[in-house]
Amino acid sequence: MSATPTSPGPIHGFAAVVPAGGVGSRLWPLSRPDRPKFLLDLLGEGRTLLQATLDRLEPLAEESLVVTGARHVAAVAAQLPNLGPSSIVAEPSPRDSMAAIALAAAILENRHGPLVMGSFAADQVVRHQDAFEAAVREAVEVARAGHVVTIGISPTGPSEAFGYIESGDALGGTGVEGGAARAVIAFTEKPDAETAAGFLATRRYYWNAGMFVVRTDVLLGHLDRLQPTLATGVRQIAAAWDGLQRDDVLAELWPTLTRIAIDHAIAEPVALEGGVAVVPADLDWYDVGDFDSLAALLPSGANGVTTLDRREPTVVYRADGSLVIGGDKPIVIIGIPDAVVVDGGEALLITTRGSAQDVKHAAALLEETVAESAARQ
Amino acid sequence: MSATPTSPGPIHGFAAVVPAGGVGSRLWPLSRPDRPKFLLDLLGEGRTLLQATLDRLEPLAEESLVVTGARHVAAVAAQLPNLGPSSIVAEPSPRDSMAAIALAAAILENRHGPLVMGSFAADQVVRHQDAFEAAVREAVEVARAGHVVTIGISPTGPSEAFGYIESGDALGGTGVEGGAARAVIAFTEKPDAETAAGFLATRRYYWNAGMFVVRTDVLLGHLDRLQPTLATGVRQIAAAWDGLQRDDVLAELWPTLTRIAIDHAIAEPVALEGGVAVVPADLDWYDVGDFDSLAALLPSGANGVTTLDRREPTVVYRADGSLVIGGDKPIVIIGIPDAVVVDGGEALLITTRGSAQDVKHAAALLEETVAESAARQ
Repeated sequence: MSATPTSPGPIHGFAAVVPAGGVGSRLWPLSRPDRPKFLLDLLGEGRTLLQATLDRLEPLAEESLVVTGARHVAAVAAQLPNLGPSSIVAEPSPRDSMAAIALAAAILENRHGPLVMGSFAADQVVRHQDAFEAAVREAVEVARAGHVVTIGISPTGPSEAFGYIESGDALGGTGVEGGAARAVIAFTEKPDAETAAGFLATRRYYWNAGMFVVRTDVLLGHLDRLQPTLATGVRQIAAAWDGLQRDDVLAELWPTLTRIAIDHAIAEPVALEGGVAVVPADLDWYDVGDFDSLAALLPSGANGVTTLDRREPTVVYRADGSLVIGGDKPIVIIGIPDAVVVDGGEALLITTRGSAQDVKHAAALLEETVAESAARQ
Repeated sequence: MSATPTSPGPIHGFAAVVPAGGVGSRLWPLSRPDRPKFLLDLLGEGRTLLQATLDRLEPLAEESLVVTGARHVAAVAAQLPNLGPSSIVAEPSPRDSMAAIALAAAILENRHGPLVMGSFAADQVVRHQDAFEAAVREAVEVARAGHVVTIGISPTGPSEAFGYIESGDALGGTGVEGGAARAVIAFTEKPDAETAAGFLATRRYYWNAGMFVVRTDVLLGHLDRLQPTLATGVRQIAAAWDGLQRDDVLAELWPTLTRIAIDHAIAEPVALEGGVAVVPADLDWYDVGDFDSLAALLPSGANGVTTLDRREPTVVYRADGSLVIGGDKPIVIIGIPDAVVVDGGEALLITTRGSAQDVKHAAALLEETVAESAARQ
């Protein structure tokens, strides 16, 4: 566990919600629909991204709820033996983040009455645990006053890979004394390089990691106004959740819920109304999106190659910056700088860090080839 | 068998000698010291390079002798079940091509008296069997008159990878009527591109494939003059070869033999004396030296990738011109044109066709890494 000895204990009336979805197709063949990114120990540290996310929240939350696809419930339960069955919410099918988070909010509220919840994706890496705990504690205080609060990542460079949060004035009376929270002016889409550099220069922009802290009644109240049919559906499902009718109600209503991200449903419109605050935090935070970012995150070996999950020798010659994962035999790479070689057991991927984004096509291309080959026979 | 129905049968008094040596380190991990190139079915055609070489000679030679390292005798015998034990000459250690070929010549002469022998390396590819047979038949006739005869490959381009044979006038009275044989002026080392282009323009240069056809007494006579200690040693070993003293004499004399290639010992000096002839031939000939030349030799698949020994799908995306050999799982290559991926069972090589020459370092680099890793433990 990551809790420090001086940790003041969980925050009273605070529950964590962990949406565990998404395949991570740019990390194929490590990740696959039946073995998504959050179930993997991508950093080779002995804990999967999901486990590390729950570890990170344990010192803070009185209760944690994981929302995941029905097909992953067993794997999630196996990885989190301390989590009871009532703490895993199974979605029959993916309906985007707003439905998942709102359902969790409604279930929590039905069980405990209104409380503060924080939503944290299951596939991110946070290295500064102390800063994370401090930011969440402040965010919970700000949320109690009625704000939707996001934790904004202090940017370490002009990244084009993330959306940004534009902050305004420091919070006045509704903030925490001595706290860092500021009002949010707007959320922006991923910028181009020039725009990102401009953002950085103002020192008012933070990376949007999708971490939201909010009172359940505030969240559902916004939803009632902004997405009323979604709100109604979620409330009905939650009302039946802990009873005998769950499956029937879920089967009837879940497929009707609007597919929308929490950013578009709540964060952006409420920010324009002045209802969102940001707690900036220097978290040493990573979104392990592809093999290029994974290579940057792993410690590089003395011989210029980064390896993970390898017992056999890995040799590079004129191939500095390479990343090699898995495989049960010696591997020699010659003349391909920044090579990426990933043995996922069932398949072998060979690419470069510069082509890391294109890996999202890999699984489909392979399926196509298999289908064509079958059609020819 | 490649013999055509119209084949006139083996050439009377002609024996083939096949030196089967060399690891083929640029084809690692397919080739290895204990599994050299000539023992491999590199083209996936069902016959190894050694077997194909003997197939090619069978319609021509009354007898074939394979000269190979002691450690490969069992593998050679297994691949060539029609060859008796007396037709495999085991070298205790490599002493370069002159010792191997001269020993074969002396053994043949001791067994049969002087005859014409032809030496053909075990690791070359010849596609035009008819042209090969015609060239060898003419070369044998020219050799009977006392020439050292080489078969010169009609060049298909200004290659820098081969030595060249510079030809002069057509042979006069010692040639075959209507034959193509010409006198050899000189042998040259591998040229640079400009020199090679100049060679081609003259139409007088041929690639040197190391194919020599010569009477055993002529060969050994040249050796007596040019490398007398080597000649004496080889004659002594050959005299003991088919008797009880073979192992003792071999153990005593073999390590003392001069290490020299037949090119430097015989071909070059005798050419300067006017004693070498060349029979030009359009053989569709290949020296499968590395993975680049192997890729060029194999038929390319419809999807832009050349594969060999693969049952699982191979997918390339922005990686045209790639070569994939072996491996028991699907392979996806993204963003590396001309990639070369070779699963040799015990090790995996990943490189590009442009780096094919550097593969010769692979085995040593891997050994080094293993040794360093062992030293650290």
